[in-house]
Amino acid sequence: MQKHNILSDLPDDLSQEVFEPIVKTDTVLIERIISKAHVTPKGQWYDQAHSEWVMVMQGAATLEFVDGEQVELTAGEHINIGANVKHRVAWTSEEVETIWLAVHY
Amino acid sequence: MQKHNILSDLPDDLSQEVFEPIVKTDTVLIERIISKAHVTPKGQWYDQAHSEWVMVMQGAATLEFVDGEQVELTAGEHINIGANVKHRVAWTSEEVETIWLAVHY
Repeated sequence: MQKHNILSDLPDDLSQEVFEPIVKTDTVLIERIISKAHVTPKGQWYDQAHSEWVMVMQGAATLEFVDGEQVELTAGEHINIGANVKHRVAWTSEEVETIWLAVHY
Repeated sequence: MQKHNILSDLPDDLSQEVFEPIVKTDTVLIERIISKAHVTPKGQWYDQAHSEWVMVMQGAATLEFVDGEQVELTAGEHINIGANVKHRVAWTSEEVETIWLAVHY
C-alpha cells in the first residue's frame, strides 16, 4: 500500500496553479491544488454543475462568492460549495504555497 | 457560507472513537474521525464494499492490512484503500487526538 504526503513533493514550477488528481472515478474527484499568489481573474467565476468540498491544508486563501461574501481559509478550515454556487479565489498567500484538498462530488 | 476547522471543536468524550459526517450523499461520505489510543479489536477487519481514501490531519496511526503489511500515517499522509481490502487500525497515538479525514466513495 503506497502512502503519500499531501504537504510534500510540491511542484517546482508554480508559474501556474497546479491541479493534481489523487483519486478519480466516475462520481468523485479528490485533488490537490497548489496555489502561490494565484487568483481567479477578476470577473471570472467557477460555476460548477457538481458540488465541491474544499479544505486548506497549508497557507491561506480567500474565497469570494457572487453575492460579495468573502471567506478566508487557513490550515484545517473547510467549506462546502454547492453545485452552481458561483465562486472565485480572490486571494492566496504570496509567502507560502497554499495547498488545498478538494473533493468534487 | 459556513466554514469549519477540522482541527477544532473536538468532542470531550473520547471514550469511544468518534465518527462525524461532514458531507453525505448517495455516492460519497466525507467524515472526520477522532481516535485516541483506539484500535480495531485484534482479529477484526474492516471489509468494505466501497473504496476509502484516508488522510491523517493530526496525530499518528498505524494501519494494518490482512497480508501483514503495516503503514504508519502522520499529519498529511494519505492512502487509498480499495474496496474489500481488509484492514484494521493497529495503533493510534495515546498522547494526542488523531484526527482523520476519510472519503468513502
